[in-house]
Amino acid sequence: MKRITIYDVAKEADVSLATVSRVINDSNVVREDTRIRVQEAIEKLGYKPNAIAQGLALSKTTTVSIVMSEKMFAYNGKILNGLMDVAKIYNYNIMFHTTSKGISKMQDVIESIIKSRVDGVILFNDNFSLEEMEVLNEYQIPMVVVGSKITETKIGNVGNVYINFEKMAYDLVNKYFERGIDDISLVEDKLNLSMMEQLKAGIDRAYAEKGKVFNKYISYDDNNYKSSFNFLSDYYKNNRPSKLVITFRDSQAIAVLNACQEAGYSLPEDCELVCVLNNKYLTMTRPNVTSYNIPEYDLGAVAMRLLTKMLVDDDSVKDNKDIEMSYVLMSKGTTK
Amino acid sequence: MKRITIYDVAKEADVSLATVSRVINDSNVVREDTRIRVQEAIEKLGYKPNAIAQGLALSKTTTVSIVMSEKMFAYNGKILNGLMDVAKIYNYNIMFHTTSKGISKMQDVIESIIKSRVDGVILFNDNFSLEEMEVLNEYQIPMVVVGSKITETKIGNVGNVYINFEKMAYDLVNKYFERGIDDISLVEDKLNLSMMEQLKAGIDRAYAEKGKVFNKYISYDDNNYKSSFNFLSDYYKNNRPSKLVITFRDSQAIAVLNACQEAGYSLPEDCELVCVLNNKYLTMTRPNVTSYNIPEYDLGAVAMRLLTKMLVDDDSVKDNKDIEMSYVLMSKGTTK
Repeated sequence: MKRITIYDVAKEADVSLATVSRVINDSNVVREDTRIRVQEAIEKLGYKPNAIAQGLALSKTTTVSIVMSEKMFAYNGKILNGLMDVAKIYNYNIMFHTTSKGISKMQDVIESIIKSRVDGVILFNDNFSLEEMEVLNEYQIPMVVVGSKITETKIGNVGNVYINFEKMAYDLVNKYFERGIDDISLVEDKLNLSMMEQLKAGIDRAYAEKGKVFNKYISYDDNNYKSSFNFLSDYYKNNRPSKLVITFRDSQAIAVLNACQEAGYSLPEDCELVCVLNNKYLTMTRPNVTSYNIPEYDLGAVAMRLLTKMLVDDDSVKDNKDIEMSYVLMSKGTTK
Repeated sequence: MKRITIYDVAKEADVSLATVSRVINDSNVVREDTRIRVQEAIEKLGYKPNAIAQGLALSKTTTVSIVMSEKMFAYNGKILNGLMDVAKIYNYNIMFHTTSKGISKMQDVIESIIKSRVDGVILFNDNFSLEEMEVLNEYQIPMVVVGSKITETKIGNVGNVYINFEKMAYDLVNKYFERGIDDISLVEDKLNLSMMEQLKAGIDRAYAEKGKVFNKYISYDDNNYKSSFNFLSDYYKNNRPSKLVITFRDSQAIAVLNACQEAGYSLPEDCELVCVLNNKYLTMTRPNVTSYNIPEYDLGAVAMRLLTKMLVDDDSVKDNKDIEMSYVLMSKGTTK
């Protein structure tokens, strides 16, 4: 028998999770008939409220800051959904901070976090330097970094929910080595430099193990799709595409696809293409682009859940604040 | 080390909490030697005043709620950038609320807005019913609705920064009438039903003026690109595409493009295609998709600026809280 959760109660009573939470915590803003319906659902299902969640709700309003780069809204949408849904279950208030070139410096964001005394912080990778995390750490503010693995020396109370991009690239390259292919390019994504570093480290490691050196890191002025497409169009007029091209985000994959095809090459015959981040746009091209199925919603949901545990000093997370999430390669039309 | 609170400062300086609060808020009723003692305690302990408490005392920290549907993150990114950049200029705190099917009902969001005593609210269209806006209005909370025009009877203190989609569709259809084309379809976008209503109203008006009736509103189970593509593929196997197809969002435009092309039709020769919302993905298809250049960043920036004026009862916005933003049709490869 599966454990009865607050979801089951909400479904049974046909109310929102927040309403169930209010009834459990004896809030007086619930209508009497709703309260009765929820209590009946609780009894019928034999639901036991989670003492920690209950305690949190009773103690005081918990406020969590989410810090995100403005440039990444479109890409981090599903992660944000996971974060927000779990935050809602715990009745957290969410303070939203964004970083953007020119307008908001990270030190202003930090100051605002400290001043408004938020209880915890969710960061996306590439946002904070080690030094900046140390400032937050001095104020004893628990943090969870979501996205990629923190490579710097670990400091204080920092959790990490991540995809192991180093291993992803290492495994992918070795798969192609096994097929006798070692002409491989990695296209730089300037919006995600820490991810690029990790992908490159994995490729370097695979090459080094074969006594070879990886030297096709394609770096250019990557401002948007148009600049990628223009650069790559020129590039493929003068250079054969590698047998395998790896890109990080969708628009670069589509730029490679369009530029290769318009230079007269066929995918996957002349060039195979793998994009790390998956999204719907990769199913709109012809052929569809091979990519990784990364559990983005879960990355957000698990990160917020980890933070809730850190906020109550849950013993289970004392030495267990690094959570690696799995992913699956989805072969589509751009790979053989 | 536990976090430093105002209690610790009071204890260290051997004064009351009220005295510490007065020093923090620059009240002039504190004796000079007491002020110095408190300031020394603040420095020694590294205490950061709580912005919210400080704001309450000064009654000036401004907190604005942004309410958004989780499904629309990817589409509203630039509007959010505009909102956040202006909010930062005014040093506002941003509380972020999202609505998602099943987990958070609008009434919970409203409750949380009222409880946390935010100073103003930014809403995206399609989020609130008139009734729900009336609840916020009762609490005297200024609101700005961003996106499309509010069609319901106007209530109290509500601003509106919008695109006139009714006029957009009316003008577009008349342009095609002038070319002798009246075989026009509108593809429904279930994520943006209020926008659809306005587009359809504009088309209906144009048809009615010619003594005709518009009857090609294509509605189907629009869950994602795949369901759009599957439906439209079947549709165009059995029906010639209209001479002009209008879609609202990118993935539906690309579904029309792919489905038409794979059913053997050419764009723009057999079928012209116009997508209302523009984004980079419409430049990645072949041909590129014609769309409207809508000033999304400005919609956000102007909406937040309007709210700042409403928060201080600026005379200039007393009877001037409706701001219509302009747009430009960008002809690309899917129109003649």
